[in-house]
Amino acid sequence: MFYVVGHKNPDTDSVCSAIALSDYLSKCSTKTNSDEKYEPAIQGEINEETKCALNKFGVETPLILTDATNKKVILVDHNNKMQTLDNIEKAEKIVRVLDHHPINFSYQEQIEFLTMPVGSTATIIAQMYFKENINIDKKIAGLLLSAILSDTVVFKSPTTTDIDKIMAKKLEKIADISNFEVFGLELKKAKASLKNKTPCQIIDADFKEFNMNGCKVGIGQLEVVDFEDFYAIKEQVSSQMKKMKQDKNYTLVLLVFTDILREGSEFLTAGDVDAVKKAFNISTIDGIFLKGMMSRKKQVAPLLENYYNKNQNNKN
Amino acid sequence: MFYVVGHKNPDTDSVCSAIALSDYLSKCSTKTNSDEKYEPAIQGEINEETKCALNKFGVETPLILTDATNKKVILVDHNNKMQTLDNIEKAEKIVRVLDHHPINFSYQEQIEFLTMPVGSTATIIAQMYFKENINIDKKIAGLLLSAILSDTVVFKSPTTTDIDKIMAKKLEKIADISNFEVFGLELKKAKASLKNKTPCQIIDADFKEFNMNGCKVGIGQLEVVDFEDFYAIKEQVSSQMKKMKQDKNYTLVLLVFTDILREGSEFLTAGDVDAVKKAFNISTIDGIFLKGMMSRKKQVAPLLENYYNKNQNNKN
Repeated sequence: MFYVVGHKNPDTDSVCSAIALSDYLSKCSTKTNSDEKYEPAIQGEINEETKCALNKFGVETPLILTDATNKKVILVDHNNKMQTLDNIEKAEKIVRVLDHHPINFSYQEQIEFLTMPVGSTATIIAQMYFKENINIDKKIAGLLLSAILSDTVVFKSPTTTDIDKIMAKKLEKIADISNFEVFGLELKKAKASLKNKTPCQIIDADFKEFNMNGCKVGIGQLEVVDFEDFYAIKEQVSSQMKKMKQDKNYTLVLLVFTDILREGSEFLTAGDVDAVKKAFNISTIDGIFLKGMMSRKKQVAPLLENYYNKNQNNKN
Repeated sequence: MFYVVGHKNPDTDSVCSAIALSDYLSKCSTKTNSDEKYEPAIQGEINEETKCALNKFGVETPLILTDATNKKVILVDHNNKMQTLDNIEKAEKIVRVLDHHPINFSYQEQIEFLTMPVGSTATIIAQMYFKENINIDKKIAGLLLSAILSDTVVFKSPTTTDIDKIMAKKLEKIADISNFEVFGLELKKAKASLKNKTPCQIIDADFKEFNMNGCKVGIGQLEVVDFEDFYAIKEQVSSQMKKMKQDKNYTLVLLVFTDILREGSEFLTAGDVDAVKKAFNISTIDGIFLKGMMSRKKQVAPLLENYYNKNQNNKN
């Protein structure tokens, strides 16, 4: 059995890509008379947006897998060991990796490893189905479309490429979605509500951990449709971030609140504020709306990484 | 201009893959009306085997490029920064990577990065031509075939897969080679001669450097058709290896002499002999013929890497 699993704090792309790649590989197995079995898995609870997508297309939530010990695993939508299964070094094998993030990976064996500079992992999987002429059923097309719309913030993120749009167009027909931009906003609204969430839940919702030149940096991102919601919880979240920084020994904790309608973000930080100011060339953080700032992958993490690479000293 | 370049100490796969991928990408550009230009490059002088292949198919030796500063580069047949261009961090961009080695790579941007567990990078490129229906001319088919035969040691290396054989069969027809096994041995014999070579040339011929858990490890591999040649130069090479270990501060220098007819290897070492004994579970090194040991990629480097990962202390 191969477990196909996305990153910690699963988002819609990582969950839907795990499900779709399992389906794709199972169908390839059938085609080649291989008896390999593929099972999608997630590393934790799914968010409201992903729930909305799975419900809409009548697909069950994958099983939760958090430990790689003695398992054969296929990693999707991440290639960074800080975001992968616990005990990944005890896995029987990392069989392959399929992703669209910057690369930070080492492995002692030859494996199939593919990253592409596109807006979502789902885009790559959709291309594989079409290129290899593997049948995509309505459910899978719906999930792939959901993942593309989610990760590209309905094509507003600068990570969006023409290929994402072409794949979305093709998938829209198969999934029988009449207007994918309306559907994309429906998904985003499901995710964006900050109501009834604790500060911890807000920080954790889409949080990724990075090792930047020896510094432990955590970056969360939240999509908001109404910034009033954000202002209402700002102080509480900020206190919790400071506590988290200390308890877990982060150099920097950064939350990116992204307004998907106004197309930009505000930052909240705990820890190395200096790094954030210098990396983004801003003199203050509080209350600054960064127009066009939509992508952690392309506009946030690389700039911080660059800063820490140039500033050798660990700042703990 | 994009420079398509293989690893330091170019071998036949890295040179022919650079040439073929440039051709492939140029043809794709023409198809999509893009005006991108691709130029194959090598990091140093080519060996006798590669010369034989280029001569046979009437292809010129690519230009030598050793420094990445301000260049847009595409890396083939390696993904390890120790084997790539000088000043890779000053490259305008690493545009993509295509390889069949174990992975050891990090990069801050999303790029196209593909590794496959096959016998040569040429195998992957051949597959791309066939899948995308790009015309392969006779010269390119000949180079790709040469590279596959070279890297798989005419299908004797345990890195060989069915895909390598299938691609070789297809390429054989296009390249108009009547018997590729005979042609493969012709290539190997061109490379295997140790005569008229200095100890330095013998060590450098196919030498790769690794960072194994902080230890600087150099592994060379030589293919020999007559082990008498090897015994004749053994003492001299051994002295030079000891000097090299000290001068360049290696933890370990290991040379693998592979007999392609008897299908196995003998080791020569300088430095951390203990690591070699423990990694390969042998009680002595001198005069031990390791039957079936053919692949640095699969049978040598991973075992040493594993050893150094378990033994944390740097042994300099």
